[in-house]
Amino acid sequence: MREKVLDFWFDFASTYSYPAVQRIGPLASKARVKVRFRPFLLGPIFQAQGWETSPFNLYEAKGRNMWRDLERLCGDLELPFRRPTTFPQQSVLAARVALIGLRLNEKWGKNFCLALFRAEFGEDKRIDDAATIGDILTQLKVDPAPVLEAARSEALRVGLRTETEEAQRLGIYGAPTFVTPDGELFWGNDRLERALVWAKRGK
Amino acid sequence: MREKVLDFWFDFASTYSYPAVQRIGPLASKARVKVRFRPFLLGPIFQAQGWETSPFNLYEAKGRNMWRDLERLCGDLELPFRRPTTFPQQSVLAARVALIGLRLNEKWGKNFCLALFRAEFGEDKRIDDAATIGDILTQLKVDPAPVLEAARSEALRVGLRTETEEAQRLGIYGAPTFVTPDGELFWGNDRLERALVWAKRGK
Repeated sequence: MREKVLDFWFDFASTYSYPAVQRIGPLASKARVKVRFRPFLLGPIFQAQGWETSPFNLYEAKGRNMWRDLERLCGDLELPFRRPTTFPQQSVLAARVALIGLRLNEKWGKNFCLALFRAEFGEDKRIDDAATIGDILTQLKVDPAPVLEAARSEALRVGLRTETEEAQRLGIYGAPTFVTPDGELFWGNDRLERALVWAKRGK
Repeated sequence: MREKVLDFWFDFASTYSYPAVQRIGPLASKARVKVRFRPFLLGPIFQAQGWETSPFNLYEAKGRNMWRDLERLCGDLELPFRRPTTFPQQSVLAARVALIGLRLNEKWGKNFCLALFRAEFGEDKRIDDAATIGDILTQLKVDPAPVLEAARSEALRVGLRTETEEAQRLGIYGAPTFVTPDGELFWGNDRLERALVWAKRGK
């Protein structure tokens, strides 16, 4: 029997990935589905379709409603929310640190992702600042210096690029996106529940 | 006390308006919220942001996933689904007929909307064809000739344009969109339940 696994693709700059990352753990565990966190970069994918920034900045009415919708959603979920002063933020360093964590020790990797999203969208912290990342690592009892050094290495640069290429190959064009082992793609925080059902029963 | 009303803005060319129009009646009646159907045209709004066709045609990966997602959604809801040969279709005549119906007799207006969406996305019928519209009117025991004539009048042209301008003024940029009496805007079929709660309790 095929193992029940759901790939959770996200970018740390993505707004709706914030509620998704907070919701996925409890929901997946209730559904008895294993979740793999797959950080990647949306930037190159957006650029390939001619967008130089987030569509939420390009299309004003869409962006305005997204922020309001996210605020309502966080209210419903009792998640802290503060609209970030800067959006979108460079997520490359955060994504590389997350990759290191997820490969070394799934628990710190996932906890890092949760904490980073909360800092970004709950506390208006800069996630492109190594200090924010270092603080979170320290809270997780991980020594920041060697991790940040490794995150700046060629190996991690290539590692993250490979993940982003894989996302593109799968047809991913936004985040969060959930992909089942049989290649079914679900886009958006609001598709999480349906994706878990598919991962479990294969349709 | 403010009356509990939810405005349901949609374009007959909009894919996700199909499941929304089928779901909204029973859900609203359960929630004891009155729903007003507000057909409008997305075309001028898309053009104002530089799109000459649907974003689902402009962005290939996004479009591919939308069709698959809609198919899954219709499967879950046990709604007939056939991907239309032509997309998007000119929805102006259908929208004007719907406006006539909704103003004359709410029941035929709403039933016309339900039947037209089903013909378009469940049976691959052309909704820009007066014959399709005429068939549906006949099934609803409405004489098609005077309605189609009125739909082509200056009064209806202006009527629909006014509705579209109102949608734009409200900040609507996609369909379906639900708007509460206090101006809260919810975009997307997947926000219908939340919009009904807001319409009912005001938050």
